[in-house]
Amino acid sequence: MLDTSPAARAAAWLAAFAAALESRDSGRILESFAEDCYWRDLVAFTWNVKTMEGRPAIAAMLDETLARTAPSGFVPGEAKDTEDGIEAWFSFTTASGTGSGIVRLEGGRCRSILTTLQSLTGFEEPLGHSRPTGVRHGADRNRRTWTEERAAEAAELGTTRQPYCLVIGGGQGGIMIAARLRQLGVPTIVVEKNRRAGDSWRKRYRSLVLHDPVWYDHLPYLPFPANWPVFTPKDKMGDWLEAYVKVMELTYWTETEAVRAAYDAAAGRWTVELVREGRPIRLQPAHLIFATGAYGPPRWIALDGAERFGGEILHSSQYSDGARFSGKRVAVIGGASSAHDVSVDLWEAGAEVTMIQRSPTTVVRSETLMEMAFDIYSEAAVESGLDVDRADLLAAATPFALQPKYQKALYDRIRVRDAEFYRRLAASGFLLDFGDDETGLMMKAYRTGSGYYVDVGGSELIISGEIKLKAGVAIDTLTPSGIRFADGSEIAVDAIIQSTGFQSMHEVVAQLVSRDLAHEIGPCWGLGSGMRNDPAPWHGELRNMYKPTAHPALWFHGGNLALSRFFSKFLALQLKARFEGLDTPVYRTPL
Amino acid sequence: MLDTSPAARAAAWLAAFAAALESRDSGRILESFAEDCYWRDLVAFTWNVKTMEGRPAIAAMLDETLARTAPSGFVPGEAKDTEDGIEAWFSFTTASGTGSGIVRLEGGRCRSILTTLQSLTGFEEPLGHSRPTGVRHGADRNRRTWTEERAAEAAELGTTRQPYCLVIGGGQGGIMIAARLRQLGVPTIVVEKNRRAGDSWRKRYRSLVLHDPVWYDHLPYLPFPANWPVFTPKDKMGDWLEAYVKVMELTYWTETEAVRAAYDAAAGRWTVELVREGRPIRLQPAHLIFATGAYGPPRWIALDGAERFGGEILHSSQYSDGARFSGKRVAVIGGASSAHDVSVDLWEAGAEVTMIQRSPTTVVRSETLMEMAFDIYSEAAVESGLDVDRADLLAAATPFALQPKYQKALYDRIRVRDAEFYRRLAASGFLLDFGDDETGLMMKAYRTGSGYYVDVGGSELIISGEIKLKAGVAIDTLTPSGIRFADGSEIAVDAIIQSTGFQSMHEVVAQLVSRDLAHEIGPCWGLGSGMRNDPAPWHGELRNMYKPTAHPALWFHGGNLALSRFFSKFLALQLKARFEGLDTPVYRTPL
Repeated sequence: MLDTSPAARAAAWLAAFAAALESRDSGRILESFAEDCYWRDLVAFTWNVKTMEGRPAIAAMLDETLARTAPSGFVPGEAKDTEDGIEAWFSFTTASGTGSGIVRLEGGRCRSILTTLQSLTGFEEPLGHSRPTGVRHGADRNRRTWTEERAAEAAELGTTRQPYCLVIGGGQGGIMIAARLRQLGVPTIVVEKNRRAGDSWRKRYRSLVLHDPVWYDHLPYLPFPANWPVFTPKDKMGDWLEAYVKVMELTYWTETEAVRAAYDAAAGRWTVELVREGRPIRLQPAHLIFATGAYGPPRWIALDGAERFGGEILHSSQYSDGARFSGKRVAVIGGASSAHDVSVDLWEAGAEVTMIQRSPTTVVRSETLMEMAFDIYSEAAVESGLDVDRADLLAAATPFALQPKYQKALYDRIRVRDAEFYRRLAASGFLLDFGDDETGLMMKAYRTGSGYYVDVGGSELIISGEIKLKAGVAIDTLTPSGIRFADGSEIAVDAIIQSTGFQSMHEVVAQLVSRDLAHEIGPCWGLGSGMRNDPAPWHGELRNMYKPTAHPALWFHGGNLALSRFFSKFLALQLKARFEGLDTPVYRTPL
Repeated sequence: MLDTSPAARAAAWLAAFAAALESRDSGRILESFAEDCYWRDLVAFTWNVKTMEGRPAIAAMLDETLARTAPSGFVPGEAKDTEDGIEAWFSFTTASGTGSGIVRLEGGRCRSILTTLQSLTGFEEPLGHSRPTGVRHGADRNRRTWTEERAAEAAELGTTRQPYCLVIGGGQGGIMIAARLRQLGVPTIVVEKNRRAGDSWRKRYRSLVLHDPVWYDHLPYLPFPANWPVFTPKDKMGDWLEAYVKVMELTYWTETEAVRAAYDAAAGRWTVELVREGRPIRLQPAHLIFATGAYGPPRWIALDGAERFGGEILHSSQYSDGARFSGKRVAVIGGASSAHDVSVDLWEAGAEVTMIQRSPTTVVRSETLMEMAFDIYSEAAVESGLDVDRADLLAAATPFALQPKYQKALYDRIRVRDAEFYRRLAASGFLLDFGDDETGLMMKAYRTGSGYYVDVGGSELIISGEIKLKAGVAIDTLTPSGIRFADGSEIAVDAIIQSTGFQSMHEVVAQLVSRDLAHEIGPCWGLGSGMRNDPAPWHGELRNMYKPTAHPALWFHGGNLALSRFFSKFLALQLKARFEGLDTPVYRTPL
C-alpha cells in the first residue's frame, strides 16, 4: 500500500532532492521546485544570510556553491500537513559541518526551503556530552584552578593577547554574540559604556517592561526559568543580563567607550582606540562587531524656535522617571512605542500629557498579539515539545518575501477581532495604520524598526482623553511657553520629550570610523520593500545584519531578543570559521 | 487477547489498589502487597517523611491517615519491566493536593510504594501557564514597579513585617528551601554570616571542585546550562549561588549571625536575636529552619601535648590556600574527602604531606562512580527524557531499608572492576573498607555523612608515596616538633590540619537555643542502622531532616545539592500548609 503520510511524501521529496544535489545539476535540482520558489540559506551554502528568490536565482547560487558545499547525508525529520501542503524538517551535512533545514512543499514541489549551518565539523560546541569536565582529575603541581584561569584570561585578553573579535556595545545583542563566540572558543571582548551589564535596560523609564512575552525572549544556553514573568520588568532584565555575563564567563569591559577605529587591510587587523574607566587603551581585533542596537545615537528632530522655548527638551532615551514632571504639562513628540510608554509613565506620575503624533502608527493589543501571533512561542508550544530553537527555525523558514501575505491575513483577523477597539481609538483622532500594504506590526518592525505600538494600556488613556492628542498637524514653531502648530493652534507646555527613535547602527560606524565608510556600507536593517522609510531595491533579508558587509571584518548584530538569539548563532559560526582559517567563500549576488 | 504489557499489569494493580483505598479497609488494601513490603510517604499521607516497613506498620498508618487523606483519582503513568518485576509511575489526588508515586511490583504484588505530595490545592506554584505576568497592563497612577515592590519588600520584611520562616544558614540548603518558599508565597528571610552568597564555597580550599557531576547537582527551577562543567569548581559554584539568590528574588541577609533563639509556645513564635552587619536585630518568625549544613561547628579532636607543639594547628574548614605551606612538613589528620583534598592541595603547593588515617575509608574512583552509579543522573538520562525531578523520584522510590542490598551489589561490581586499583591502594598501607556491611559509599553517606572519598587523584599520590601515610596507629602525643604515635614512632611536622569533619547540625541548636533542647531533639542525619557512628534504633529515614522534629516549629534542612533540591520541595509544602492554616496532622509512630 502506498504510504501517503506527510512524512512519507516529504521523505520521498527529500530523497529525490538529495539525489539531484548529488548530480550537481541545478536544472535537475530545480525540477523538484515550484515555479514561484524560495531558498533561504543561513551560512550553510552561501556563507551568507541570503534568500534566493525564483528559479534563476536558485540555479545561480547552486552553480556557484554546490561543488564546494558538497551537501550530503540528508535525513528526514518531522513532517506535517499544512494549509498549503507539507512542512518537513531535515538534517544534512556539508563539507564544513552539519545543517538543519525545513522545506515546505506545495503540490509535491518545493515552494520554499530553509538551509542552516548548525555546527562546524571539528569545532563543535562543548555542550551536553562534550561539556567541559571542570577539573583535571589527578594531582598536578602546575594546576591552575578555574578562578586562576579566569583571572589570567582577564589579565591577558586585551593586553598581552589581542581578542579576535571586539564587540562594541554590551546590551543584549552584544552579550549574546559574545556568549556564542565564547562557546566556540573565539577570544572576544565586549565593551560597554555603562557601569554595569544590564544598565542599558535599567536606565530606561521607570515603568518599562518587555512588550514581547518570555517564551520569545530567551537568551542562548540559559533559558529563563519557569517562574519568570511573562513580561520582564526592565530592571529584572538588567539583572538577568548581568548574571548571564558572569555565568557565561564573558570578557566584558564596563565603563568602556570606543572612540576611533581604523582597519589595516594588509594586516587584517583593526586598531581601535578606547577609553576604559577613564584611561585610553588600544585594541587590535581581527573583527569588529557593532552591537549598539537601539542604543546608538538618538534621533532628534529639529524644532524651530527651540532656542527661545523656556522649558526643557529631552529625548526619550534621557527620560527615566516621571516624578519630577508631576503637575507639569508635557508634550511627547512621537506616536510609537516609546512615545506611548513615556506618555503613560508621565500620566501615572501626575503630569498633564499631550502626545504629538506626526504620522500614523500601527497599534495592536498585547493580549491579541499573545493569542494570535505567538503560537510557536508560548507555554502551549513548550508543552507540545517545541523548544525555542526549533520555534526559531520555524519562524525563519518563511522567507521575507512571503511574509506579507501571512501577516496581512493575520492583521485582517486582528482587525475584525478588535474592530471596536480600533473604532474607539480612531474616534479619538489617533492616526492608525497597518502599514502601506496593511501587513501590520511585524513587517513594520522588519522594514523600519519603528512606527508601531503593542498596546499595554496607553491606547485606553488616549481614548478616554486622559492623554491628550495632537495628531497629524505639523509643528510650526516653539514659543517661549509652548508649541504652535501649522493649523495655528497652540499648546502651553513645560517640557517636550522627543520620542523620535534612534538612528541606524551605521551612524555609529560614521562616528567611529568614517562617514565615507558608513556611506559605502549603507544603512542597516530594512528589507528594501520600497515602503515608507524602507527604500528599494528589494534586498530580501535585513540589510547588513548578521552577515558580511561591504567592508571586510566589519559586522552588525542586534535586533530584539529573539532575533539576537537566533542570528547570534549564525554570526558566531561565520566568525569561528574565519578564526579557524576555514575557507568561507561568500556568495554575494545582489539577490 | 490479554494485555500483559507492564503498563497493563501496573494499571490493573493500580485500579485494584485505588478501589481498596476507596473502601478505607487496610486489610483489603494489604491484599495487594507482598509479605515483605514498604510504603515510603513524603507528606502525602503522613504530613511527615516516613517509611512504613511491613504490613502491620502500613496498616497502622492507613488506619490513622486514610479517612482524612481521602486519596483518589489514581492515574497510571509509565511502567516498565525491571529485574525484580514492574516499576510503575502514577499520580493521584488527596484532600490537600496532588501527588505522584512510584510502585514496584513483584509477583503482581507491591514490594514498595512511594507516595509524594506535589502541590497543595489552591496554592499551586505560579509556574509555566500560571507564571506571573510581570506587569499589570493598563495605566495605573498607583503602579508600583517590580523594582519598587522588591525594594518595599526588602525594607519591610524583618522590620515592620515579620517573616513566617527564618532560615539560619545561606549555603546551598538554605538557598534552596528559601527559593521553594518564595515560590509558594511564604515570607522568608535567609541569614548568612558571610559577606556574599556563595562564600561558603568560595572560602574553601583552592582546588575544591564538586565531586558529584552536574546532572546530580541542579538547583530547583533554574537548571545549570548545557555548557556547565561536569564537576563545578568551588568559586563558580559560589557565583552561581549568588546569581541564583538574585534571580529567585530571595530576601537574603548577608553578614548576619543568629546569636540566640527562644520559642514562645503560647504565641507560636520564635524570638531570634541576630547581629546584622554589626547591629543587633530581633526577628519573630513562626518557624525556624536550620540549614547550617556541613558548615556548622567544626569537629576538633583533642590532641595530647597540643600546648607544647611549636607549629600551627588548623581545622580543614580554616584551610584555604596551600601556598604558605610550600616546603613545609604538614600532617593531615583524617582519611576521608577533605583529608584527601587538603593533602592533594598541599602536595600541589609543594608541601611535604603525611596523611594520618585513623580509621578505614571507603574509596571509589570518580570515573567508576560516574559510569556505574549515576545512570539516572547523566547526559544519557537527559537525552532519554528523564529530567532531574523524575530522576529524584526514582531515587527516592527505594526505601532506605532496601538500599543496602542494591548498594552491596553495586560495590561488588565496582570492587571487581577496580580490583587492581584497590590492591595497589591497600598495598600502600591505606585502610580501605566498604562499610561494616560492605555496602559502600552511599550508605556511609546516609548513615554518618563521613568516612568516604570519591577519588579524583588523591589515591594515586598515596599509592606512589608522594603523600606519605600513617595509618591505623593512634596518636600518642604531640611533641614540640611533631607527632609521636602509640607505636613509638615520631614524625616532625610544621603544621597539623585536622580534617576531622563537622558536628551534627543539632549542635547548632545547642548553641543557639539550649543544650537541653538539642538533647530532646537528638542528632540529625543517620538512619539508625546500628553500624559504626549510626546508633540504633532503626529509623528508616534520615533523622530529623526535612520533617517535624520533637520541637514545634523547628526544622532541619541540608545535605548535598541533590538531597537539598529534592527535599526542599517537601519541606516547603509542609511549611506552606501551616502558613495557610491547613490541617497538618503528623503521623509520628516510631517506625
